[in-house]
Amino acid sequence: MVTRLSNFFLRTLREDPAGAEIASHKLLIRAGYIRPLAAGIFAWLPLGLRVKAKIERVVREEMAAAGALEVHFPALMPREPYQATGRWDEYGDLLFRLQDRKGGDYLLAPTHEEAFTLLVKDLYSSYKDLPLTIFQIQDKYRDEARPRAGLLRGREFTMKDAYSFDSSDAGLDASYQAQRDAYERIFQRLDLEYVIVQADAGAMGGSRSEEFLHPTPVGEDTFVRSAGEYAANVEAYVTQVPAAQGWDDAPEATIFDSPDTPTIDTLVEHSNAVLGGEYTAADTLKNVVLALTHLDGTRELVVVGIPGDREVDDKRAEVAFAPAEVEPATAEDFEKHPLLVKGYIGPWSPTGVVLGEESATGIRYLLDPRVAEGTRWITGANIDQKHVHSLVAGRDFTSDGTVDIAGVREGDPAPDGSGPVTLARGMEIGHVFQLGRKYAEALGLKVLDENGKQVTVTMGSYGIGVTRILAIIAELNNDDKGLIWPTSVAPFDVHVVATGKDDTAFALAEDLAAQLEATGLDVLYDDRPKVSPGVKFGDAELIGVPRILIVGRGAADGMVEVWDRRSGERETLVAADALARIAASR
Amino acid sequence: MVTRLSNFFLRTLREDPAGAEIASHKLLIRAGYIRPLAAGIFAWLPLGLRVKAKIERVVREEMAAAGALEVHFPALMPREPYQATGRWDEYGDLLFRLQDRKGGDYLLAPTHEEAFTLLVKDLYSSYKDLPLTIFQIQDKYRDEARPRAGLLRGREFTMKDAYSFDSSDAGLDASYQAQRDAYERIFQRLDLEYVIVQADAGAMGGSRSEEFLHPTPVGEDTFVRSAGEYAANVEAYVTQVPAAQGWDDAPEATIFDSPDTPTIDTLVEHSNAVLGGEYTAADTLKNVVLALTHLDGTRELVVVGIPGDREVDDKRAEVAFAPAEVEPATAEDFEKHPLLVKGYIGPWSPTGVVLGEESATGIRYLLDPRVAEGTRWITGANIDQKHVHSLVAGRDFTSDGTVDIAGVREGDPAPDGSGPVTLARGMEIGHVFQLGRKYAEALGLKVLDENGKQVTVTMGSYGIGVTRILAIIAELNNDDKGLIWPTSVAPFDVHVVATGKDDTAFALAEDLAAQLEATGLDVLYDDRPKVSPGVKFGDAELIGVPRILIVGRGAADGMVEVWDRRSGERETLVAADALARIAASR
Repeated sequence: MVTRLSNFFLRTLREDPAGAEIASHKLLIRAGYIRPLAAGIFAWLPLGLRVKAKIERVVREEMAAAGALEVHFPALMPREPYQATGRWDEYGDLLFRLQDRKGGDYLLAPTHEEAFTLLVKDLYSSYKDLPLTIFQIQDKYRDEARPRAGLLRGREFTMKDAYSFDSSDAGLDASYQAQRDAYERIFQRLDLEYVIVQADAGAMGGSRSEEFLHPTPVGEDTFVRSAGEYAANVEAYVTQVPAAQGWDDAPEATIFDSPDTPTIDTLVEHSNAVLGGEYTAADTLKNVVLALTHLDGTRELVVVGIPGDREVDDKRAEVAFAPAEVEPATAEDFEKHPLLVKGYIGPWSPTGVVLGEESATGIRYLLDPRVAEGTRWITGANIDQKHVHSLVAGRDFTSDGTVDIAGVREGDPAPDGSGPVTLARGMEIGHVFQLGRKYAEALGLKVLDENGKQVTVTMGSYGIGVTRILAIIAELNNDDKGLIWPTSVAPFDVHVVATGKDDTAFALAEDLAAQLEATGLDVLYDDRPKVSPGVKFGDAELIGVPRILIVGRGAADGMVEVWDRRSGERETLVAADALARIAASR
Repeated sequence: MVTRLSNFFLRTLREDPAGAEIASHKLLIRAGYIRPLAAGIFAWLPLGLRVKAKIERVVREEMAAAGALEVHFPALMPREPYQATGRWDEYGDLLFRLQDRKGGDYLLAPTHEEAFTLLVKDLYSSYKDLPLTIFQIQDKYRDEARPRAGLLRGREFTMKDAYSFDSSDAGLDASYQAQRDAYERIFQRLDLEYVIVQADAGAMGGSRSEEFLHPTPVGEDTFVRSAGEYAANVEAYVTQVPAAQGWDDAPEATIFDSPDTPTIDTLVEHSNAVLGGEYTAADTLKNVVLALTHLDGTRELVVVGIPGDREVDDKRAEVAFAPAEVEPATAEDFEKHPLLVKGYIGPWSPTGVVLGEESATGIRYLLDPRVAEGTRWITGANIDQKHVHSLVAGRDFTSDGTVDIAGVREGDPAPDGSGPVTLARGMEIGHVFQLGRKYAEALGLKVLDENGKQVTVTMGSYGIGVTRILAIIAELNNDDKGLIWPTSVAPFDVHVVATGKDDTAFALAEDLAAQLEATGLDVLYDDRPKVSPGVKFGDAELIGVPRILIVGRGAADGMVEVWDRRSGERETLVAADALARIAASR
């Protein structure tokens, strides 16, 4: 059935909506695809719902091809399973929580690992039932602190989330690969360029974790890649530990006056002046004080020693210390710990250990992996206006562990030896993840193996943000006139525009629209009788159906125009040729 | 692609689940269609999701045929629109309420009238934009006090809700009729018998309201119908007001002793004895004391006078007094109001008015419509152990209004004059409703009319419970072996069962399954290698695909069995004939 604009539910807007900053957000609202309801919450209008349905169809087809079976969970879930895995607390303010009339605790699920685990536990009991991959396409909720960028970071969003269940690690590898392959096919069918990068698996407790990023300078995520195979997001980059070196030839640690040198720059300048060297920031050890807030609400100060030419990377720190929250220490923190002399902090002092294994401060001291045994440093001496040089790691100071949170830079070595990395930005469009046994253990999902022995199931988790992908496609496919959809997800295949006051044009347009629809194309027909050609063309450009067929003045002679929305080319053709042209461009 | 049972996500259960009382609830769980998660909340397994999708497709097709356009709202909605219409409070405990991290109030929408109204207000401004009917198929939430009967009264459920918008009453009538017609087509396609009954429109503020009920003795709703056109649910039945009569020939109201006659039965017996008549309960006026709890929490006592041969109908009372809640007055209420002499209450006493317009009690007195002017009654005299006879309505007592809450009985007259009604039971499967201007007024939805004048839009609301319909179809189509789906909504069109240890049978079954799938049928193929025929047949009967094709011992000779799940007939046929038979039975 041809969709007629005269009774379609659509109002296009000439003005950008208030508060919208990125093109997809502006255009999806202006062109009548979505409508904001509350911060990060949208209604879907008929045009938007059509595009969403097309993306979902591609996802469903590839899930079926990968042998995954569709199920569906409600958004409203009871607390207990999330309590059992700790996520009821770990999610913090991101979770929408509520109570029912009897005081029972519920949440709006941001993701369903627990529910899927319990469902399989509920129904399956033998290795023969596995492998199993089940998925849903479902509306999820996260109470983002700052919802922004329209659908890119909303508080409600549609996701395809799949979960695999295997009785062996080899099985998990195969299930993981099947989903990974399906994701590649999905993004290829959606004309969406992607890079697969290693992602941090730590916080979720799993082993292998990869993200599909769409590379774009405006992406929220930074990733690194080498000329070889290596690609990882910055959180997952692993710093190589330099070989330990001896200190037989090393001079003794020596304290020196360093007035007014609380920064690395001033310290380097002063050191070169008084010690007579060619020191750089990389020769200094910067000691950064961080405050961790643990899940139980306790606050802990930690000091992290990193080379002075690097900064702490917030995202890497967040991942390293999760589920604790990290922030810089405050003035109040320093007041409570007078041993930490701001600007002159170090692991050593002439009077003995200040930080590290034997520290009496009770403050953990963690070191960047580059501070390997035998490396020599200029650093604070824990005395105001004094530093120390020739301080040797392993000889003069130790730590309570290693933490890899310094920022990654262009030129840093890829951990797989494939050369220096470059930095790029991208948007996350998918995530495949070997959860391993974390959830199955927490929730008691076991099956009997070949020998009749109970084994804990190993799981994978695989997510694609359907509404996020829609927004990214819109973000990538537009110009100053409006949206330009790829044919794979366009709300309609052809937009037929009848113009003028001539009944002949409307009669021909009607006929051509019906013929196109009969060939299996989805047709939007602008049959509005008293709307000017300019407004109709403007709407067609804004809505962004890739092929536009204009039926106007030439209709009396059987001539029409085929307009390619992307290239802007318009060609006048005999009607039959126009139909053939459109059919050929499917 | 043929769906293979060997790697389908399914576990059939031999035992009825605990707590399940009705057949659909038991069988949908036992056959692996749904799985309970919390009270009234379910996960949908692949079989269930397939049936649900088929019902949704029928609904979508008929909505499109009726010119309705699909949109989608989130379940999570901000408080404000529901506050503006009063429903934030009116819904009481039925509403799941929550707050976001900033303390903003939200709810899980049980229905979306407000959201649709605001969306149209947001985008449309002229009568030319109308008529418009938009709908969604969406997961809704209601915190039922006693979730029960599986999907029939869950706390989460899927509904199609449509809303129409018109600038004139005639337009609303047309939009209403289009949805009503679509509902008839939907239920016909789903093989679901229905009766369209008048429903009460009062509480929602609208004018015309009809329910689609599936007639069944186990239905929760009672409705009445005449031999003619009349059908209504009991809440909507309107009692005819008898003509007023004069009282010139009426004797005076006369008090008489009536010891120990606090009930209607004892009163009738005593009256006939002492007054010498042939009185029945219908000659007595029973005064029932009810307690209303208003939205603001205040409690009000009202007395309702109804003929002694009738009882107050709880549902009719609920509708009549909504949004206030109704309950019988308590002993405490009577203690506070000593003028109300329990068992002997009446509107009149020898000392003057007790209840009615001039009452000093401050208690409203409402009368059944049957208590028409001039009717004569035996009733309480407000003195312990005393009644009054020959009390004439209009002469001896008045009321503060009429209330039509007495129960409806077999033989009561249909209000349209089509004769006596009979009572029947049914389950609600759809509801069409002229909301009129209530929501548009509350939320300020106006458009400019032909003369450039602002007019308030008039609306309709149209709901079908998708998951409820699924449960009802399951409830109607089963036997002691399991489910028996109608072909219109069966999860698969054919269930192919390979039995035995003979490779020939499996090879033929494989081939036939592929051929059936190639003709466009959805095929479930039980290819499980080491499962006994008995288990396979039992699963097939439980799952309830209407056509089963058994490939077993006869396979070597090219013979198979076609099994009709509903009739139970099994017929041995040559394979090609079997395929033709199945194709013919589509």
